[in-house]
Amino acid sequence: MRNFTFYNPTKLIFGTDAMDKIAEQIKPFGQKVLVTYGGGSIKKNGIYEKVLSQLKGFTVKEFGGIEPNPRVETIRKAIAEFKSWEPDFVLAVGGGSVIDGSKLLISAMYYEGDPWDYMITPGIEPAKYIPLGTVLTLAATGSEMNSGAVITNWDKNEKLVFGRQQAFPVFSILDPQNTFSVPADQTANGLVDAFSHVLEQYITTAENVPLQDRFCEGILMTLIETGTALLNDLHNYETRANHMFAATMALNNVIRQGTNEDWATHRIEHEISAFYDIPHGAGLAIITPRWMNVIKEQKAKKIIQYGKRVWGLSGLDEEIIKGAIMKTHDFFKSLGQKMVLSDWGVTDEHFPEMIERLVAGKIGEIPLNYEQIEAILISSVE
Amino acid sequence: MRNFTFYNPTKLIFGTDAMDKIAEQIKPFGQKVLVTYGGGSIKKNGIYEKVLSQLKGFTVKEFGGIEPNPRVETIRKAIAEFKSWEPDFVLAVGGGSVIDGSKLLISAMYYEGDPWDYMITPGIEPAKYIPLGTVLTLAATGSEMNSGAVITNWDKNEKLVFGRQQAFPVFSILDPQNTFSVPADQTANGLVDAFSHVLEQYITTAENVPLQDRFCEGILMTLIETGTALLNDLHNYETRANHMFAATMALNNVIRQGTNEDWATHRIEHEISAFYDIPHGAGLAIITPRWMNVIKEQKAKKIIQYGKRVWGLSGLDEEIIKGAIMKTHDFFKSLGQKMVLSDWGVTDEHFPEMIERLVAGKIGEIPLNYEQIEAILISSVE
Repeated sequence: MRNFTFYNPTKLIFGTDAMDKIAEQIKPFGQKVLVTYGGGSIKKNGIYEKVLSQLKGFTVKEFGGIEPNPRVETIRKAIAEFKSWEPDFVLAVGGGSVIDGSKLLISAMYYEGDPWDYMITPGIEPAKYIPLGTVLTLAATGSEMNSGAVITNWDKNEKLVFGRQQAFPVFSILDPQNTFSVPADQTANGLVDAFSHVLEQYITTAENVPLQDRFCEGILMTLIETGTALLNDLHNYETRANHMFAATMALNNVIRQGTNEDWATHRIEHEISAFYDIPHGAGLAIITPRWMNVIKEQKAKKIIQYGKRVWGLSGLDEEIIKGAIMKTHDFFKSLGQKMVLSDWGVTDEHFPEMIERLVAGKIGEIPLNYEQIEAILISSVE
Repeated sequence: MRNFTFYNPTKLIFGTDAMDKIAEQIKPFGQKVLVTYGGGSIKKNGIYEKVLSQLKGFTVKEFGGIEPNPRVETIRKAIAEFKSWEPDFVLAVGGGSVIDGSKLLISAMYYEGDPWDYMITPGIEPAKYIPLGTVLTLAATGSEMNSGAVITNWDKNEKLVFGRQQAFPVFSILDPQNTFSVPADQTANGLVDAFSHVLEQYITTAENVPLQDRFCEGILMTLIETGTALLNDLHNYETRANHMFAATMALNNVIRQGTNEDWATHRIEHEISAFYDIPHGAGLAIITPRWMNVIKEQKAKKIIQYGKRVWGLSGLDEEIIKGAIMKTHDFFKSLGQKMVLSDWGVTDEHFPEMIERLVAGKIGEIPLNYEQIEAILISSVE
C-alpha cells in the first residue's frame, strides 16, 4: 500500500429531513448568504422555494446561470457582482457544475488577480476563503464531498481541475427526493460519471490493495443495479438514495487511499468537451470502453478481476477481458447513451491538437503515448 | 435507507513516513504536549523514542499505565496530575485502550465533577476540550478515527461507551511498522474486534442498503485474508497495512450510514469483561457465533448473504446459515482463540446479574429477551 493522508471534513446530511437542517448549519458563519444555482430548473421543481423557506432570517442574494461545464467567465461575473457585498456564506444548490463553479467563487473572490490564474498557479492564496455549503440535486460528480472542481475556459479551449483544502463544503445536503425530477438522460450521464470515477481509481496496476478494490467493486455493482432500476422508475426513493450515496462515495477520497489512479479517460473527455459542449458523462461513456481496450494488456490483472467480480464473468483470461469491456460498453448503451462521438457532432478535426496537449500533460497511471491516445479517439469517433 | 449525518474530521496519516509528520500536526495547537501510553511496551519496541524524537522543541510530559479495558480511576489520576499544567495537546501512543482512556482525559479534564459522571450524563459539557492526536500501535478498535470510547468502572462492575464530537482525534498516525511487534494473540484479538465491529453493523434486518453491505463484506473478506496471512508472518508490511486500514474502516462511521446496527455482542462482552478482566477481542470471539445462532431466524436474510458472499457458501438456506456460523467460529479458532469462556475462568456465577442489566439496557437491533441472552451466555461458557 502507498503512503497516504486521508482528510475529509465535509458533513454529509442525508435523507428526507436533510433540507430542514440548512439554517442551523449556516448560522455559525454569519448572516449574508449567497445562493448559487444553474439554469433555473430549481425554480421549476420546487427546490428553490424549499431552500429559501429555510433561509428566513438570513439576508439572501442569488446568482444563477452557472452552466454545465462551468466557465471561468461566469465566475468572474459572480465575483464582480458580489465581492463588495462580502457574503458570509455561499450555498450552492445544484449538481456538480454549480458546486464546482461555486468552489472557484469561494476560493478566488478575495484573490486580487484573475480566477483562472488563481486556479492554474499552485501556491497562490487569496486573502480569505468563503465557507461553502451545498444542496445536491444530481448524483454524479462527488463534488459535494471533495475539495476539487473542474472549470472550463472557452477562450483557451481549456478545461482544468483545481483543488484546495478550503474548497471542501462544510456541509452537503443530500435529499434523494431532490433528484426525482432529473430526467433519464441526465440521470444516466451522472451515473456514468460516478462509474468512471471508480474505474479511474480501480483499473490500475496496483496490487495488494484488497479493501480499496472491494470498495470500488461495491460501488460499481451498486451503480449497475441502481442505474438499471432507475430507468424503470425515476421516482423510487430507495433507488435514488442508493444511487446518490454511491456517487458520493465514488469521489470523496475513501476509495483512493493508498492505491494508484489513472484519470486518462477523464482527461481525454475534458479535452473533447473543451472544444465541444457535450455532457461530461456522455463523453465518458464513449471513451471508457475504448480506453480499456487500449490499456487492456498493461492492466490485465485488474480488468480480469473487474470482469469476474463485478460482471460475474468466467473463462479464459482473454475472454474475460473482452467480456468486461463489452459489458461496460453495453451497460452504458442500455442506459440510453450514444456510443460514438460523431452522434454528438464531434469530428476528428481537433484530434491532433488534443493529442499533443494530452501527451504533454502525461495522462494516465502509465502515461499514454501519442498512438495510444489517437487509437482511443479514432475508435471513439464513429 | 435511513436518514443519517456523516461527519468525520480526523486526518488519517498512513504509511512508512507517517511518524515524521507528528510535529507539524501538533504545532498549531501549542507547546505543551502530554504523551499518554499503556503498560510500557512502547519503551521496549522503540516507538516511544521515535515519538519523543519528533517532539523536540515541545515541552513534553508523560502519563503511562493506561491499562487494557481502561479504567476511570486511571483517568482520574491523570487529571489530578496534569490539570494544573494545562497541556495544549494530548498525544495518545498505543492501541484502542490508550486512545479511549485519553478521550476521557481530554474531555473530562476541565469538567469540575467526576469523569464517570461526565461520561454517563448526556449534555454535560466541560469548560473546554483538549485536542487529541494518536499514534496507533494496534489494529483493532477503530478508536483512532471515531469519537467514541469504552471505559470500565471496577467499583461498579460497569463498562460503558461514551461519545462526543470533540473526541475525534484531530490526526492519527498509522504506520503499519508500529504494529510489527504485536504478538500473535493480541493481533488476533484486535482482528476479532474489528471483524465484530463490522458484523454489528451488517448482520441486521436492514434491506436495500447494497453499498453499505458490500463495504462490510469487503472489510470482512480483507480481515479474513490478512488474519490468516499474519499468523504466518507478523512482520509483513503489506499485510499489516491492509489489516490496519481495514480495522480503521470498520469503525469510522463509513459503513454504518443509513443502515441498522446491533451491538448486542459487544454489550454482552462488555458485561463479561466488567466482571472478568479478559481481552475484549477474546470475549467477542466466543460470543459472536453463539449470538448468531440465537438471532439466526430474525436476521436469516443477511446471514445467508454473509455466508454466500463472504464465505462462498451455497446450498439450501438453512445449510448456508449453519455453515456461516461454523465458518465464523472456525475462523476465530484458527487464529488461536479460546472458544469457551470457561477457558478464561468465567463461570455462570454472575450470569443472572449480567442478564438483568442487559435486558434492562435493551441490547440488540431487536432487543434480546432474558432467554435469548441466557442462551448466548450458557452456550458460550463451555
